[in-house]
Amino acid sequence: MIVIMGHRADDNKIEVVLERLKKAGFKTHLSRGVERTIIGAIGDRTRMADLALEAMPGVESVVPILQPYKLASRAFKEEGTIVKIGDLELGGSEIQVMAGPCAVESREQLLESARLVKAAGATMLRGGAFKPRTSPYSFQGLEEEGLKLLAEARDLTGLKIVTEVMDASTIPMVAEYADVLQIGTRNMQNFFLLREVAKVNKPVILKRGVSATIEEWLMAAEYIMAGGNYNVILCERGIRTYETFTRNTLDLSAVPVIKHLSHLPVIVDPSHAIGKWRFVAPMAAAAVAAGADGLLIEVHPNPAEALCDGPQSLTPSNFEALMKELNGVAGVFGRRLGVPQGI
Amino acid sequence: MIVIMGHRADDNKIEVVLERLKKAGFKTHLSRGVERTIIGAIGDRTRMADLALEAMPGVESVVPILQPYKLASRAFKEEGTIVKIGDLELGGSEIQVMAGPCAVESREQLLESARLVKAAGATMLRGGAFKPRTSPYSFQGLEEEGLKLLAEARDLTGLKIVTEVMDASTIPMVAEYADVLQIGTRNMQNFFLLREVAKVNKPVILKRGVSATIEEWLMAAEYIMAGGNYNVILCERGIRTYETFTRNTLDLSAVPVIKHLSHLPVIVDPSHAIGKWRFVAPMAAAAVAAGADGLLIEVHPNPAEALCDGPQSLTPSNFEALMKELNGVAGVFGRRLGVPQGI
Amino acid sequence: MIVIMGHRADDNKIEVVLERLKKAGFKTHLSRGVERTIIGAIGDRTRMADLALEAMPGVESVVPILQPYKLASRAFKEEGTIVKIGDLELGGSEIQVMAGPCAVESREQLLESARLVKAAGATMLRGGAFKPRTSPYSFQGLEEEGLKLLAEARDLTGLKIVTEVMDASTIPMVAEYADVLQIGTRNMQNFFLLREVAKVNKPVILKRGVSATIEEWLMAAEYIMAGGNYNVILCERGIRTYETFTRNTLDLSAVPVIKHLSHLPVIVDPSHAIGKWRFVAPMAAAAVAAGADGLLIEVHPNPAEALCDGPQSLTPSNFEALMKELNGVAGVFGRRLGVPQGI
Amino acid sequence: MIVIMGHRADDNKIEVVLERLKKAGFKTHLSRGVERTIIGAIGDRTRMADLALEAMPGVESVVPILQPYKLASRAFKEEGTIVKIGDLELGGSEIQVMAGPCAVESREQLLESARLVKAAGATMLRGGAFKPRTSPYSFQGLEEEGLKLLAEARDLTGLKIVTEVMDASTIPMVAEYADVLQIGTRNMQNFFLLREVAKVNKPVILKRGVSATIEEWLMAAEYIMAGGNYNVILCERGIRTYETFTRNTLDLSAVPVIKHLSHLPVIVDPSHAIGKWRFVAPMAAAAVAAGADGLLIEVHPNPAEALCDGPQSLTPSNFEALMKELNGVAGVFGRRLGVPQGI
Repeated sequence: MIVIMGHRADDNKIEVVLERLKKAGFKTHLSRGVERTIIGAIGDRTRMADLALEAMPGVESVVPILQPYKLASRAFKEEGTIVKIGDLELGGSEIQVMAGPCAVESREQLLESARLVKAAGATMLRGGAFKPRTSPYSFQGLEEEGLKLLAEARDLTGLKIVTEVMDASTIPMVAEYADVLQIGTRNMQNFFLLREVAKVNKPVILKRGVSATIEEWLMAAEYIMAGGNYNVILCERGIRTYETFTRNTLDLSAVPVIKHLSHLPVIVDPSHAIGKWRFVAPMAAAAVAAGADGLLIEVHPNPAEALCDGPQSLTPSNFEALMKELNGVAGVFGRRLGVPQGI
Repeated sequence: MIVIMGHRADDNKIEVVLERLKKAGFKTHLSRGVERTIIGAIGDRTRMADLALEAMPGVESVVPILQPYKLASRAFKEEGTIVKIGDLELGGSEIQVMAGPCAVESREQLLESARLVKAAGATMLRGGAFKPRTSPYSFQGLEEEGLKLLAEARDLTGLKIVTEVMDASTIPMVAEYADVLQIGTRNMQNFFLLREVAKVNKPVILKRGVSATIEEWLMAAEYIMAGGNYNVILCERGIRTYETFTRNTLDLSAVPVIKHLSHLPVIVDPSHAIGKWRFVAPMAAAAVAAGADGLLIEVHPNPAEALCDGPQSLTPSNFEALMKELNGVAGVFGRRLGVPQGI
Repeated sequence: MIVIMGHRADDNKIEVVLERLKKAGFKTHLSRGVERTIIGAIGDRTRMADLALEAMPGVESVVPILQPYKLASRAFKEEGTIVKIGDLELGGSEIQVMAGPCAVESREQLLESARLVKAAGATMLRGGAFKPRTSPYSFQGLEEEGLKLLAEARDLTGLKIVTEVMDASTIPMVAEYADVLQIGTRNMQNFFLLREVAKVNKPVILKRGVSATIEEWLMAAEYIMAGGNYNVILCERGIRTYETFTRNTLDLSAVPVIKHLSHLPVIVDPSHAIGKWRFVAPMAAAAVAAGADGLLIEVHPNPAEALCDGPQSLTPSNFEALMKELNGVAGVFGRRLGVPQGI
Repeated sequence: MIVIMGHRADDNKIEVVLERLKKAGFKTHLSRGVERTIIGAIGDRTRMADLALEAMPGVESVVPILQPYKLASRAFKEEGTIVKIGDLELGGSEIQVMAGPCAVESREQLLESARLVKAAGATMLRGGAFKPRTSPYSFQGLEEEGLKLLAEARDLTGLKIVTEVMDASTIPMVAEYADVLQIGTRNMQNFFLLREVAKVNKPVILKRGVSATIEEWLMAAEYIMAGGNYNVILCERGIRTYETFTRNTLDLSAVPVIKHLSHLPVIVDPSHAIGKWRFVAPMAAAAVAAGADGLLIEVHPNPAEALCDGPQSLTPSNFEALMKELNGVAGVFGRRLGVPQGI
């Protein structure tokens, strides 16, 4: 790291900083310019936050040189990680489309959803059994009953199941039914949950916090990896900006940026980002062009009857049309959509 | 609510929307303009999100008239709520200053902190036993040992104890030692935690999510109140903006806005918002001028040795000087700082 | 518009609001609910801002029903506008790629740039003669000499010329040389400039302000159109968010949103949005997949020697590779890249 | 500056970077760590942007050590600048309140405003003759007629006049009548305007751009100072964030931050920041507590009849009450409000 001393820092203050760095095991190098003195320090980056150098008299600012994440970084692992979900591969040449309703509402709704997203070419079924809702008065999900319906849908269609886990206490229950656990955007920095999910032997989709920087997002992945679970899939789902016409702003540039900084696969959820079905298809196509390894798309047999997020759900026919376009775009980049397996 | 139909919505589509609204128990009124048809609907606002009207063909947008929160609203309760913390009152004419280190680090550090913040006039002691840290490699808190030290500090000084609860599973433990439970910014929409903390008979400080709107913040308070705990204290602690010189941007206008929309008391945490001790004192004074009912301020006997957030902690002498200014500002508005009780 | 009265507004206050609306020529409709009284008002939307209803006693808020722009709206003109730039069409089935260096630096640099972007398939040449620079000490452009070089490059290659106009006083000079005038992001709400450019008989590229909402952006287009120039091309170029890894956040969802709200064509500038050449190509491809009508891409014969924005400029070979991908993506959507004309 | 090389940068690439730095007159120092090589470079900071180092092969990032502004920095001038406006001083122990209507609407409205703000204790009169309006259909100001009325108000009351200059072409006209020129938020980076206003011998209020960083804001001040006009007053007026309940988010922490980084005085405009009169008074008081040297407050004899920004204007009686509070808060910090001079 680089420690920049203020323009009035005298030798005493500089000495104290040097001492502290040495005591913490850093090698230091002092460089006196006309206007500023700077100290270069080489050592364990992960200890930097705990050193509190910026609280020391005379210190103007501290600039890290290395990234604060290790296991998640491309420097740690050169080749891209392929996460296996049963016989499916995510992160390789196949793009996996995960589709389905926002919430599991009933047996009919879910099974119909499963059949139609499979028919259109999805390989995985999404659907919430536990629903984080802004209002305490909104539908909160069917909980275990919803999980059972998801498992039934898998048995009938062969689709893999993705569903959200909202609290550490429900991890065992969710893990019993799901193929992939999803950490929602509001829980990206729920460190208790991250530590517990790290102990489960299932892939985890880690959604980006709605105002998380890319670095914070990778640090959250680091929590899961440091705990022993390397099967982390990052999911860009829109960030909060001043623009209100769309629900959030889909930051597609996060896709190539993650590919550069990390070896982990990255997927995109255009439905939650945009919040209006009309704009979901073009953004799904754009996500594939930007290099996404998968998509999470809300599809509902009848969006206007949905108990949750109907306004952003595609109808079956819109979804079918979209899948054709996605296949075309994937082909331009030498990729193809994953193929649903029969039962 | 108001439903605005698109400029090409025909009578059929309008009829379908009217039907759905009536079925859901809303009274409707149709108004046909030259360019748009709009439907007014009067009924239960809390059901609006579940109606998915924006997914219906022909609907352009839906505009709520009433706020989505009830128990937290000023319309529900005209006079301001005073939360009692033992013999202290928060929300009345006295302003309570909660001060102390970011994290409980050791017996010496905590007891010294407690003595000096009390001497300067604080009435409550803050200190984290469970620490949410961006990096898995940073100090994560002393956990129960830290809670015990906090209780010891209370016994010695009479200061009330505020500390963070990070996960539903640790609520019983934290509630055993603390006078006030704090929900951190990353957990503002951890709905599991909100529902569980609602069952505890202790005041709760609910920090604003770092990118939460004021409405979402009040909805989070509504979760706690709807669960039975009315002793909610809102805490503005900075929001995430594009400006990076300060850690976050302290949104002081939230103070009078909350006072207008809600009857709940509101306090301010300038330390976490700004992230640099140098700017904490002026913002603390500004918070009192803006009408805050209390302050949460990081003070450390030796900030440069702190294991957590040293750069934003005041030294004892800076804190003492600040307390004098705060007293002056409070006086301009006919208020005064709460007075620490002897043992 | 809808006027929502506060829950304590009495009949007197309501009457005063009704009077003002009627005097301003609005037809009104009163609706009394249990908790709120609301007033619907039908009339000239463009007068709403000047009515200051929210300043009237008893008024809680005012909700517009119609958009504040007219000429720029899809409701005003159903079919998409095709802007003609000589023999090129922008907004139809052909996608026009405008490429070239950030700034015109020298005759050699510009002519080489022109030749190579044409060879790769661009139909228009971009290059700044007047440069808005954050620092007064940075290179500010060659001014008229730069314009002359652009004209020479056109003569040699047949490429159309796009260049920025920074101040109303220089419009005549710039318009003498350029085929398309560009309004930069910092000038999107320079209303003097908008009014003057409205009088010129040349297409105008209107870049989105770095923190402009889509509505404000369309209002800026409205200024130009209301002044008589209907040949407006909107350009998404990234918005300011909290994320700092990229220079700005490219809001690609603005592309389908603009297509929905307006008949005007929309292009994308990934270079300025991202600020790092490495991520420009995937975002350019994503822009085409999202439905953009054109692209503005920085290409420099030798980015590391560029006087301006080198870090975001593509090398000639990267640009060539990108153009092949863009052709592929365009084809998926039944479009193709415009073809450069010979001399 | 510090140049951080990528982890795969070989000696050749490092050599090329060193060469370029030396050629540009920088002294360099190479430091090879286990994971990264970094190059320290000492030289002219203002040349950094033009070096395009980040475009060079092998370079990962470039970190500046010094601030990019010079004349505006506290390092350049230790003591705070006091700007003289006739016999008034801004930046010293007196706090100047500038009040008046958003726009000059008529002789009656303006003279009445002038009389009442003076009676309440304001020392300067604000009022717009040229109005930047989002909509081309809104009232755009009385232009020169408005300027003449402002001058008349000065003659009658002795109040100094502050008014906005929107375009370089109108500077001579505005400077003829005004005591202080104001650069509006949308023009903070209108570099043509900044360069022209630098040539005028009048104080300039430079409003912060609605999404400008503090550094960009100081760079805009640097433009004016580099052009020869050192009488720059910075004005915080709210920044654009995701929160929509207030018009913008008033960033009061900018006040102490500017005081730390720069010697220039800083004032606050709570009216435009908040957009709702109800919250203006507490934020004005908070601004004084945060250390502001002055305030810009909208006051209108009859806000509900205002042609512009009525919803954010104080009534005369609200303004009067506020002035008493401001005096109290100023006193806590050993300051006082400036005193209006008689005629």
